[in-house]
Amino acid sequence: MAAELVDRLAALVGPGWVVRDLEPLAEYGHDATFMESGLLCAVRPASTEEVAAVVREAAAAGVPLVARGAGTSLVGGPVPLAGGVVVSLDRLTRLEIDVRNTVAVAGAGVVTAALDAAAAEHGLMYPPDPASYEMSTIGGNVACNSGGMRCVKYGVTADYVIGMTVVLATGEVLRLGGKLRKRASGYRTLQLFIGSEGTLGIVTEVIVKLIPRPRFTATAMVGFRRLEDAGSAVARALAAGHFPAAIEILDRGSLELVAGQLPPGFEPGLEAVLIVEQDGNDEEFVQLDLMKMVEVLGGADNRIAQSSLERERLWAARRSFGKVLMSMPKNFFAEDVAVPIAEIPEMIRRVQDLARATGLRIVTVGHAGDGNLHPTILFEDSQRGLVSAAAAQIFRDALALGGSISAEHGLGALKRDYAELEHGALGMDVMRRFKKALDPAGILNPHKVFPEQPADDAFLESMPGWLPDPDRQRRRAELGL
Amino acid sequence: MAAELVDRLAALVGPGWVVRDLEPLAEYGHDATFMESGLLCAVRPASTEEVAAVVREAAAAGVPLVARGAGTSLVGGPVPLAGGVVVSLDRLTRLEIDVRNTVAVAGAGVVTAALDAAAAEHGLMYPPDPASYEMSTIGGNVACNSGGMRCVKYGVTADYVIGMTVVLATGEVLRLGGKLRKRASGYRTLQLFIGSEGTLGIVTEVIVKLIPRPRFTATAMVGFRRLEDAGSAVARALAAGHFPAAIEILDRGSLELVAGQLPPGFEPGLEAVLIVEQDGNDEEFVQLDLMKMVEVLGGADNRIAQSSLERERLWAARRSFGKVLMSMPKNFFAEDVAVPIAEIPEMIRRVQDLARATGLRIVTVGHAGDGNLHPTILFEDSQRGLVSAAAAQIFRDALALGGSISAEHGLGALKRDYAELEHGALGMDVMRRFKKALDPAGILNPHKVFPEQPADDAFLESMPGWLPDPDRQRRRAELGL
Repeated sequence: MAAELVDRLAALVGPGWVVRDLEPLAEYGHDATFMESGLLCAVRPASTEEVAAVVREAAAAGVPLVARGAGTSLVGGPVPLAGGVVVSLDRLTRLEIDVRNTVAVAGAGVVTAALDAAAAEHGLMYPPDPASYEMSTIGGNVACNSGGMRCVKYGVTADYVIGMTVVLATGEVLRLGGKLRKRASGYRTLQLFIGSEGTLGIVTEVIVKLIPRPRFTATAMVGFRRLEDAGSAVARALAAGHFPAAIEILDRGSLELVAGQLPPGFEPGLEAVLIVEQDGNDEEFVQLDLMKMVEVLGGADNRIAQSSLERERLWAARRSFGKVLMSMPKNFFAEDVAVPIAEIPEMIRRVQDLARATGLRIVTVGHAGDGNLHPTILFEDSQRGLVSAAAAQIFRDALALGGSISAEHGLGALKRDYAELEHGALGMDVMRRFKKALDPAGILNPHKVFPEQPADDAFLESMPGWLPDPDRQRRRAELGL
Repeated sequence: MAAELVDRLAALVGPGWVVRDLEPLAEYGHDATFMESGLLCAVRPASTEEVAAVVREAAAAGVPLVARGAGTSLVGGPVPLAGGVVVSLDRLTRLEIDVRNTVAVAGAGVVTAALDAAAAEHGLMYPPDPASYEMSTIGGNVACNSGGMRCVKYGVTADYVIGMTVVLATGEVLRLGGKLRKRASGYRTLQLFIGSEGTLGIVTEVIVKLIPRPRFTATAMVGFRRLEDAGSAVARALAAGHFPAAIEILDRGSLELVAGQLPPGFEPGLEAVLIVEQDGNDEEFVQLDLMKMVEVLGGADNRIAQSSLERERLWAARRSFGKVLMSMPKNFFAEDVAVPIAEIPEMIRRVQDLARATGLRIVTVGHAGDGNLHPTILFEDSQRGLVSAAAAQIFRDALALGGSISAEHGLGALKRDYAELEHGALGMDVMRRFKKALDPAGILNPHKVFPEQPADDAFLESMPGWLPDPDRQRRRAELGL
């Protein structure tokens, strides 16, 4: 009967676009963290209509479906935990830059960097830039409401999506929004699909707003002797009227890791470093605004790049972070939490306390501008059992400070059991009502987002296949964290 | 039994905060367009907990509830069509500017301009600026996802709300989000409440992001001989790298109306005028960027203000629009539609054709930057019957051009019957599922958003009380349109 379903799917999308054999099929069973085998097949439909036909067929057979972009998730989002059919959207690569309406129409399989590059040809920009954006797809970004470095000034994925084609669990095709930049008509259904991680529908195409592309960028590195001063810097810059294009933070531990990439003679023993950018259309003003901002930030050692070469050098420390991790003999696991910006110092301090208490090395980088931190746990094989408890403590600390267990990666499988700690019983109940309203049989991406066991037993422990493949982690780390 | 419910509500909020008498009660039965009598009472709770208690009591009695802000709606949003209890949120005026986190916490009853003014004291800004913002409340803005003039650059209400307290139809209190600027954890439930016009829950408090307040603003007026050139101007400015803080449009008809307010010697016989603004922190750069933008726009008569007095003079034409309308012996009715920005000229032309075909005078102003147009119908009492059909035609034209029947006002009662033309049967069905998931008994703001009769018989005709009170319209028009 399973084989019959695969045959029927092959008839729908063409036999060359169904993957059944074990070895190539394995490629569809993992993300950047772990994998699951046992899926029935992967299909690679060529259009929304083919996706809809596949969903109808699988739904009729009661077989689960998991939509898949580039598989760069760090939380097991596209891993097919219940087996079934993986719907790869890699062939949905239609891309149109509509300059007259200043929007882009993109198939779910369009790589995000390609979308932005196409916009750039017309002097326009698609701002959200997750670290994986040279590999990840706009469909995956929409599923996870991805963020990135430019988001402090420009917002996240959800701030740009104005139209969407989504295949529902019934196989019905729902078209939401359009090329319109402003709408106050009816419920914001479109927004509910964003960040729903493929559990409410399969997004096959989106329409995104584009904005004018700033022509110049200026970069500075600002070092702080006290964590508090670095943490309060973001709010001080904003209140002084500066809207930075990026504010990245590296704590003392991550500075030690990338010490070789810091500018020559850079003040040693700093507690934190911010990399700050401004962008705009007037070179002189952009540089001037950055200089004023650096003055407001008030660091102990400040470097302002005077050329694009110097800009690259300042970024080297942050950009080399992933590569340094990969070159080390240890394993690593990068977390993704967010706190209100005033709580950044306290959150970093709690992570440092946790490192001391557990003996784990934990270093923190992040997008300070929106309070998004990536505490990264380095560990020996023998310490693997500690990682789970440490990550759980990081979640609890972020929540205690009014934060979130996921700023830009989603909940997927790895964090689902902590969702209720963040959203409360009523919040989860409302989410379950939405799931039931749109996918009553639960065939879309099962075992994701919603808790399945008490949080304290949960994180990673329930994932036997966790971290099976260092290569996968490396591929992801190359793209930054 | 009804009287008993009112007594119980009085016990919950205090007898001084229940309005039962006919005359004061009438104040709670209208918006800026029409009114409905027959409500049971209005209550003015002092806290989320009191709102929740009121909802529980009314829900137990099966009596409908309508949340009310300042009553500035132009689509009958807060008009209690099914009677019942009006829950006025005017006492929920707690306001906190949290500078360290660059957010504001505001009770639903806080007037939007007061929120922005409080942010301004700290060098910060709350950008969404609906024309009514000196009167309308943040709660009402959230219910309608209100826009405004600054939205082309800064976005609408939904782009700023990051936290919310909402009382559900059961009286349960749901807290969503927080002071966090970035979150990819669980469904975006918060976004579904925005723009739901009080039909899914009663929002009692919000947390909104603030941004740096630009210190300088520059203003220009650009006149066009051809509508096409004005229409394509927005996209050309964006593609040239300029992100204007506002682009307002006046068509030939509205220019005739406010001719006395145009700058001396301004080119006569223009087809359209744009008022363009830029803002930022460097006075020189802001002025320079605006000048370059005006060059890109390429108008036939361009005026760039050189002082704040000149800025005010350029704005006079647009700002006087409402006052001129009020001074005329005719009635007027302002519509609110949106189209993709490239379709602005075609939409204006269709409105002008409609005016010729019906003999109605229809003039158009709007926020050209996001395709939001306000065709305004001027009519004699004898033409009242024509207005309904004309508005319906404006809706159909906006939809035919890929637009929306409401850009920033909501659907309310006046536009509900056209919702399905825009969203389709499946789109409405999904919306109904959300309504059923959150308010199965349908006690929250009944007869709004969802269609009740076929669109062609619908607009205004079904509203016997439409336009009963010119004073109400005047009060709204004073604030702009």
